[in-house]
Amino acid sequence: MKEEVFYGKGMSTVKSEDPELYKAIVGLNEAVWNGRVLDYKTQKLIAIGIAAANADSRATEKQIKSSKEELDVSRDEVLDVLKVVLLTSGMQPFNKALQITNKIFE
Amino acid sequence: MKEEVFYGKGMSTVKSEDPELYKAIVGLNEAVWNGRVLDYKTQKLIAIGIAAANADSRATEKQIKSSKEELDVSRDEVLDVLKVVLLTSGMQPFNKALQITNKIFE
Amino acid sequence: MKEEVFYGKGMSTVKSEDPELYKAIVGLNEAVWNGRVLDYKTQKLIAIGIAAANADSRATEKQIKSSKEELDVSRDEVLDVLKVVLLTSGMQPFNKALQITNKIFE
Amino acid sequence: MKEEVFYGKGMSTVKSEDPELYKAIVGLNEAVWNGRVLDYKTQKLIAIGIAAANADSRATEKQIKSSKEELDVSRDEVLDVLKVVLLTSGMQPFNKALQITNKIFE
Amino acid sequence: MKEEVFYGKGMSTVKSEDPELYKAIVGLNEAVWNGRVLDYKTQKLIAIGIAAANADSRATEKQIKSSKEELDVSRDEVLDVLKVVLLTSGMQPFNKALQITNKIFE
Amino acid sequence: MKEEVFYGKGMSTVKSEDPELYKAIVGLNEAVWNGRVLDYKTQKLIAIGIAAANADSRATEKQIKSSKEELDVSRDEVLDVLKVVLLTSGMQPFNKALQITNKIFE
Repeated sequence: MKEEVFYGKGMSTVKSEDPELYKAIVGLNEAVWNGRVLDYKTQKLIAIGIAAANADSRATEKQIKSSKEELDVSRDEVLDVLKVVLLTSGMQPFNKALQITNKIFE
Repeated sequence: MKEEVFYGKGMSTVKSEDPELYKAIVGLNEAVWNGRVLDYKTQKLIAIGIAAANADSRATEKQIKSSKEELDVSRDEVLDVLKVVLLTSGMQPFNKALQITNKIFE
Repeated sequence: MKEEVFYGKGMSTVKSEDPELYKAIVGLNEAVWNGRVLDYKTQKLIAIGIAAANADSRATEKQIKSSKEELDVSRDEVLDVLKVVLLTSGMQPFNKALQITNKIFE
Repeated sequence: MKEEVFYGKGMSTVKSEDPELYKAIVGLNEAVWNGRVLDYKTQKLIAIGIAAANADSRATEKQIKSSKEELDVSRDEVLDVLKVVLLTSGMQPFNKALQITNKIFE
Repeated sequence: MKEEVFYGKGMSTVKSEDPELYKAIVGLNEAVWNGRVLDYKTQKLIAIGIAAANADSRATEKQIKSSKEELDVSRDEVLDVLKVVLLTSGMQPFNKALQITNKIFE
Repeated sequence: MKEEVFYGKGMSTVKSEDPELYKAIVGLNEAVWNGRVLDYKTQKLIAIGIAAANADSRATEKQIKSSKEELDVSRDEVLDVLKVVLLTSGMQPFNKALQITNKIFE
């Protein structure tokens, strides 16, 4: 199934403790990544952009890693995403995301 | 030239008052939208996602409008972007961006 | 049904255009507000706090209004929420939320 | 005294270097947690929600830990807070807070 | 007294309803603006930068207006602040703050 | 040249991979720090305030360190900046930045 990235270790506790919530998250996840016109890869690049613009290291790393592993997203593609982050959101989140990207693709 | 959206009324005052800054912004703008692997449209969709995730009404409206006018981005494409906003960033920014989208495409 | 606040005008278009997404949002909504130990009112106060801390006027107004209408949340209760916003998140979001609160309860 | 969580190591330097500021922080702290209608525990849950929605790991951990130690807030109560974070603010802050919660209550 | 900007209409209701909170806010305000090494004007410019970087229109407008009225801060000084906003935080908050600045100084 | 802080390890890869982007960033950097009325130090203090208000540990540390090294900014000056962060943006970002400051100046 798509986008297992959201189902980390934390989520397994949710599954047993609050099955209704777990089911709702799975349902949302499926509805979201099932783009009607955009393909999955474009949506993943958008998710990278959002995580990076928020300067959220953890989410940025997760999104870039899973994009690379699941979809063979390249370093150049990630850099084109980060350029948009730079323009819209500035050097502070750009630098943080650039460092994460360098580590993942070194 | 691409992405004139950033050159609003405010920018014309910058042009006369601080030509060095103006030139730098133009330079950055050109370097950013000139994606090496991603096309301009994908980058614009990422910019919509970032603006919407930040719950920034003004930027969201500007990005959606210019995407529609310059690139014929459709309502369905915007909705596929907003789905990623919903999953990553929640109902509060999603609802705000949805309302803006409905107004632009009604 | 609880928390109809999230199902604004925008959502009715989602319902017809993307029924799977709509169903997922309804499912999430139900799973979330169905607290296992906290009551609905406490959860609503938390939602007010989050919206106000984000300085998101639209979401803050929606959350306070629906709390007042559905649950008879009082001005004093909202102020006790806003005090936490002041301490954790500062005067800028506090002042914005205070103004909204004054308008709703005047 | 309530909410010593804010008086970490850093604060002791403030106390000696800038006694006026220190006194002001103590005064604010007391005025805030002294809810007129909401009890201290509800206010603490709101503070957890705000920290988690901001994806601020340090503040989230501090708030959950002090809530557990001072007020015996349970894992289930924290999860009911995080559900509101999920709905309002999305999977990215929710996942980060869930991981912190799992560590504190394991 | 310095920085009356924070004591808007909303605050007068706080004064009568919750005198302890009001007193705490006054105390904090005085301790903050009473810089030990930086002068008041530098601190106000920092407050403008923070409000603008957060894309908080209301706070940005209040801070620029009060800086202009109380301290004769000039349009050029505000623009030098906004340049830092542009570099650190990007075009989206910069454009919003530029528009507000143009309106105040036109 | 001023403000080499933005040209970290990550940037050297940008220089070789995307010279146009690198040149644009250098151009922006020069235009920004070249304040027409404010001096470089005041602009750096604003950059510290913005990074700290965003609770961005990495950027806060970088800005404080480079301000100390390049411009002999003192602990007391940083604390006067952080006071504005406290008032505008609350205890959560203030505490995080205070801890970073203590480490840098110990």
